[in-house]
Amino acid sequence: MYKLRGAAGTVSQTFKSARTPLTSKRFYSMPEIPKTQKAVVFETHGGPLEYKEIPVPKPKANEILINVKYSGVCHTDLHAWQGDWPLATKLPLVGGHEGAGIVVAKGENVTSFEIGDYAGIKWLNGSCLDCEFCERGAEPNCAKADLSGYTHDGSFQQYATADAVQAAHIPKGTDLAEVAPILCAGVTVYKALKTADLSPGQWVAISGAGGGLGSLAIQYAKAMGLRILAIDGGEDKANLCSELGAEVFIDFTKTKDLVADVVKATNGGPHGVINVSVSEFAIAQSCEYARPLGKVVLVGLPAGAVCKSPVFAHVVKSLEIKGSYVGNRADTSEALDFFSRGLVKAPITIIGLSELPKVYELMEKGAILGRYVVDTTK
Amino acid sequence: MYKLRGAAGTVSQTFKSARTPLTSKRFYSMPEIPKTQKAVVFETHGGPLEYKEIPVPKPKANEILINVKYSGVCHTDLHAWQGDWPLATKLPLVGGHEGAGIVVAKGENVTSFEIGDYAGIKWLNGSCLDCEFCERGAEPNCAKADLSGYTHDGSFQQYATADAVQAAHIPKGTDLAEVAPILCAGVTVYKALKTADLSPGQWVAISGAGGGLGSLAIQYAKAMGLRILAIDGGEDKANLCSELGAEVFIDFTKTKDLVADVVKATNGGPHGVINVSVSEFAIAQSCEYARPLGKVVLVGLPAGAVCKSPVFAHVVKSLEIKGSYVGNRADTSEALDFFSRGLVKAPITIIGLSELPKVYELMEKGAILGRYVVDTTK
Amino acid sequence: MYKLRGAAGTVSQTFKSARTPLTSKRFYSMPEIPKTQKAVVFETHGGPLEYKEIPVPKPKANEILINVKYSGVCHTDLHAWQGDWPLATKLPLVGGHEGAGIVVAKGENVTSFEIGDYAGIKWLNGSCLDCEFCERGAEPNCAKADLSGYTHDGSFQQYATADAVQAAHIPKGTDLAEVAPILCAGVTVYKALKTADLSPGQWVAISGAGGGLGSLAIQYAKAMGLRILAIDGGEDKANLCSELGAEVFIDFTKTKDLVADVVKATNGGPHGVINVSVSEFAIAQSCEYARPLGKVVLVGLPAGAVCKSPVFAHVVKSLEIKGSYVGNRADTSEALDFFSRGLVKAPITIIGLSELPKVYELMEKGAILGRYVVDTTK
Amino acid sequence: MYKLRGAAGTVSQTFKSARTPLTSKRFYSMPEIPKTQKAVVFETHGGPLEYKEIPVPKPKANEILINVKYSGVCHTDLHAWQGDWPLATKLPLVGGHEGAGIVVAKGENVTSFEIGDYAGIKWLNGSCLDCEFCERGAEPNCAKADLSGYTHDGSFQQYATADAVQAAHIPKGTDLAEVAPILCAGVTVYKALKTADLSPGQWVAISGAGGGLGSLAIQYAKAMGLRILAIDGGEDKANLCSELGAEVFIDFTKTKDLVADVVKATNGGPHGVINVSVSEFAIAQSCEYARPLGKVVLVGLPAGAVCKSPVFAHVVKSLEIKGSYVGNRADTSEALDFFSRGLVKAPITIIGLSELPKVYELMEKGAILGRYVVDTTK
Repeated sequence: MYKLRGAAGTVSQTFKSARTPLTSKRFYSMPEIPKTQKAVVFETHGGPLEYKEIPVPKPKANEILINVKYSGVCHTDLHAWQGDWPLATKLPLVGGHEGAGIVVAKGENVTSFEIGDYAGIKWLNGSCLDCEFCERGAEPNCAKADLSGYTHDGSFQQYATADAVQAAHIPKGTDLAEVAPILCAGVTVYKALKTADLSPGQWVAISGAGGGLGSLAIQYAKAMGLRILAIDGGEDKANLCSELGAEVFIDFTKTKDLVADVVKATNGGPHGVINVSVSEFAIAQSCEYARPLGKVVLVGLPAGAVCKSPVFAHVVKSLEIKGSYVGNRADTSEALDFFSRGLVKAPITIIGLSELPKVYELMEKGAILGRYVVDTTK
Repeated sequence: MYKLRGAAGTVSQTFKSARTPLTSKRFYSMPEIPKTQKAVVFETHGGPLEYKEIPVPKPKANEILINVKYSGVCHTDLHAWQGDWPLATKLPLVGGHEGAGIVVAKGENVTSFEIGDYAGIKWLNGSCLDCEFCERGAEPNCAKADLSGYTHDGSFQQYATADAVQAAHIPKGTDLAEVAPILCAGVTVYKALKTADLSPGQWVAISGAGGGLGSLAIQYAKAMGLRILAIDGGEDKANLCSELGAEVFIDFTKTKDLVADVVKATNGGPHGVINVSVSEFAIAQSCEYARPLGKVVLVGLPAGAVCKSPVFAHVVKSLEIKGSYVGNRADTSEALDFFSRGLVKAPITIIGLSELPKVYELMEKGAILGRYVVDTTK
Repeated sequence: MYKLRGAAGTVSQTFKSARTPLTSKRFYSMPEIPKTQKAVVFETHGGPLEYKEIPVPKPKANEILINVKYSGVCHTDLHAWQGDWPLATKLPLVGGHEGAGIVVAKGENVTSFEIGDYAGIKWLNGSCLDCEFCERGAEPNCAKADLSGYTHDGSFQQYATADAVQAAHIPKGTDLAEVAPILCAGVTVYKALKTADLSPGQWVAISGAGGGLGSLAIQYAKAMGLRILAIDGGEDKANLCSELGAEVFIDFTKTKDLVADVVKATNGGPHGVINVSVSEFAIAQSCEYARPLGKVVLVGLPAGAVCKSPVFAHVVKSLEIKGSYVGNRADTSEALDFFSRGLVKAPITIIGLSELPKVYELMEKGAILGRYVVDTTK
Repeated sequence: MYKLRGAAGTVSQTFKSARTPLTSKRFYSMPEIPKTQKAVVFETHGGPLEYKEIPVPKPKANEILINVKYSGVCHTDLHAWQGDWPLATKLPLVGGHEGAGIVVAKGENVTSFEIGDYAGIKWLNGSCLDCEFCERGAEPNCAKADLSGYTHDGSFQQYATADAVQAAHIPKGTDLAEVAPILCAGVTVYKALKTADLSPGQWVAISGAGGGLGSLAIQYAKAMGLRILAIDGGEDKANLCSELGAEVFIDFTKTKDLVADVVKATNGGPHGVINVSVSEFAIAQSCEYARPLGKVVLVGLPAGAVCKSPVFAHVVKSLEIKGSYVGNRADTSEALDFFSRGLVKAPITIIGLSELPKVYELMEKGAILGRYVVDTTK
């Protein structure tokens, strides 16, 4: 991939990566910034999702203005609309926190982005940079965290603002539709895998491996040198998991004793578990089948669920149960780098922004397969 | 403490430790090894605890024979007798796993102990040295772990055998009665504090701080540079915790909102929690008051208890709930070193081995204060 | 220290720290911001250090303006003036990077400081917040780092600007003269001790323990639960080190075999070494006496010196030689917290800012004892 | 690879690994243990290497007797014969510490091996299991370490003894010739990569990548998810490195500025460097091109070489220079597991044990390509 030329043109060798990176064939010319734009907005929790014209926001001194080209749609967007999480949103609200686009304006204090750069809008729009958590790179834990599509208008609009410190840098030429889901889904599972703190060659179980988060988790885990046991239901999911790199698949709809099967297949239990499944029962099982000294990572956010672990086994197995929230800036850069190198890819379906309400309907029914991405021009 | 003398006798300075190490004033002459000895034995779970004459065991090639002088009595001994834990014991059984004494014989393979050395019998009598856990220094997690006073006759006898690899080295001159409780209680809380993985200057909450384990935990935490918030009930416990080094005491019998009080006193919640309390309710509270990114350590072993943690908060706070079992060889050496330097001390009551059944009665009633230590000569 | 009052006023106990925190008895009223101020400036490397009237700077959108009350004087200030380091300075330059004062103005983007807050100027005035190092909390390694008293006018003036993200928060009521040297010297040795990555109870050797950095290092090491072997020369230094908490002192002017003495006194060599001494020979020795698996930390910056370590011993001892630069925001907060709790104290001599050139002379002669602090009002 | 069959035969999916594990097609029947055997022995350093009949050793209580089938030949064997290292060997000596064979007898204390098991002889034959290093899994640093082919007769004989705790477990069916070089060369580079403590996706430079250790290092690094920059000389080495998985190759015989080329190709310098090259100059260069915060690992053992690192850059770059000695038991198990999964393979040349002296000649001349393995039956 690198070209290193010396005097004779042959000073050093250059090897090509086996996989082609996901660079785009689409080209963008710098647009004029309009006064108004299209967006999907709701005024009340559970109220109408209106596709309408609203003003283009102005970036503050520390912000960039991004012309959002594409935005992924995440289950969290559904929770923001429903208002069923124990965190208040702003209202009215433009949702969306997986926006990929181009910098078209910036505040006077911004030195880290130039007009024309590619940039991404993440769940964490900005943070105080001053508290003990920000000081330690744990900005998602900042009590003053500003959240895209939650406390700050998000990426379901054509022009969105983002704090320049937290906005993601996306290499020029990247396919902005393909990269969108990496900005939340990708970063989140990558961070969960880092939280599991495993060594290459160890086993990781992914509970809910065939879904949107799970299929990304398999690919990141493979790129990290881990051995993957995938848990999900149905033959399609089995095939998908196998293609993406899982070594073993356990079908929870068919096994008579999931815990025993997982322990046997991994010769003693996986060293780590990534719970992207939101089933309370599946979480409890994961504490059972985890290997002694194993790390059980909680990452899905089922409202009202409780993780239950018997104290005796927890102690004698020296188990760790770790919550993993979203990634920080370094996690984001790293997750994007794996994507740019062609090692992870989210299967996406592109629709127009105006069709977004249909995706909310599908999410409410639990009928989503893969990741929907909205094109803000339609 | 060190003496460094050069040619002129003044090459280097030598400072005295402010605290006197707990060296003993008792002296021991090497005994003849008798054929029989006194021990406390039970034949069935819950059956009579008989103080009687039994044969002196012979050490295997890899074992040492220790003339036990003193042995601490631990709550685990009660469980072994009652048989209410999900691990089978040998029967008949000599209990005890906090034995301190003198090496009087050794197997032909033993090179790490000499006759006359001081040695300690720990909960982990021996392990396979071959499995993935032993290879990584996690011998307590070995599936073939041999446990003193549980699967291997323990320290409630005058002569006990111990695997030479796992037996503790105790510096000569140490007070063998004082050191006994360090071998299990001390090592266990020290390991729990290491598991919490805190930095000097951070806050640790100790739930159940006024008990036997808790009072040792306070002293180790202080020696590790931590700030200590102690939780227990009653004025006596408050005074004890204060004397041992706690900065704040929260009386759970008096506070109207323990979680709020702990969070306020530590300016956001403790960075770590050591749950030596065996209350399921107290464990659940500890997940609530722990600081974001905090580590909740489970170390007490309440039969049947379940640790319950709401998933949403667990994830968003990025909490870790970690089981901490007993220490390994390195943990033991380190825990003993703090004791030898005079930084930790267990308050003990010495009684004769023949009186041991009375201690079991007190434990059953929950009426134990401090640590009982049996003198095997009486 | 904490007061926790419940309904009955006796819900919980409150303990007093044994040591009184270093809070000030001086009070400050909010000054008017003048147009000009006193400062010490030089136009060329090695040129005159002029005490004169210059304009008060204006803070940028992301900056605060600090009315500097006191500033420590550091050896780095001498290098900045001499221009003998391989990093270019701005010219003309106001030096100083240990400034403690009060916020009197702030840029429009600043939310983390209020007028009247106490704030500190550190070596790292600001960084890009965008590169891989800033993303990981290693801002001092940022290629665009802006350095106080080096690339940004520093604290040898009455009013100085500082990036609000990097400026240190100092608790109100703190003695601003006492705290000044903590902002660089204190943070630097604290960071070096963290880099050594030692556990409480392990041995740390401090090479150059009797100097300004060394005497702070002893106090931080003690607060971290480490056992301290101090190396320096002369009886005064021996007494100082002993009083501050060193357990052993080795006088390099008297010992016949320093390496052997250090190894013997620490029963195998220290687990870590902090090289605040700038002697190349002392650094090479530290690689010799360090324990197997030991960490040798380089922190002093002798111009042109080379660390030499024989490869065979380096490998077979599994030694680590680690460079430790200045601390980041979290290190600064932690180092200040130990100070605020009364656990570390720098011995200071206060002089007027106008007398600063005399301190440069003393530094050039190597005749400095302890830390000089300038009072900007004189 | 795993077969998980449920009642209906379809409970779970089973995937095949893409690469075939290196299982052998050779079969062994259990031999009678003879009184004498063939071995290569030398009586004095640099003296004749005699292929002759010597007695078969008897295992001690803690040892196994291995019928060595194949043994790799390592550069360390040359040093043992020449006696030019600062560690004394036994004399007369049977060299060799990469022996793979079958357990034919065992001491009475051995429970971890059965007759007929496959076992490996490593550099570390045994250790005290009692010192602070053994307690922490750092057995190679044990002062009483017993070394195969150095202080304990090694694997250049048909029957060799090995401490059962340290002997490697090799899965039955493994190709014993192929696995031999993993036991030292493989484990050593794997340990060096672990010492570099890198994250998947980071850059590692391997200095001397085309040699025996280097080519194994590339394969392990790839399996660990690292990006590999290989440094060596010549087109053959370039091709080899590329095939094994290096992304970039720098030819030190052709580049005009190796440091600049490495920094450019890795966009700022590699995060880690593995110095298997024994060139003092190459080691010094590796300190220069390493990224800030980078880890430079020393693993080759050039007699008399010194690692030289300028202190100023070492500190400001926050560099770590880490010695990595041989692996412990866990490192060995892990390194073997990567081999068993078909992810690493050493290119070997098999010759008869009687021809061993020729290999020493080649090593003296520096004319070895790949790894020689001796067949003890010839």
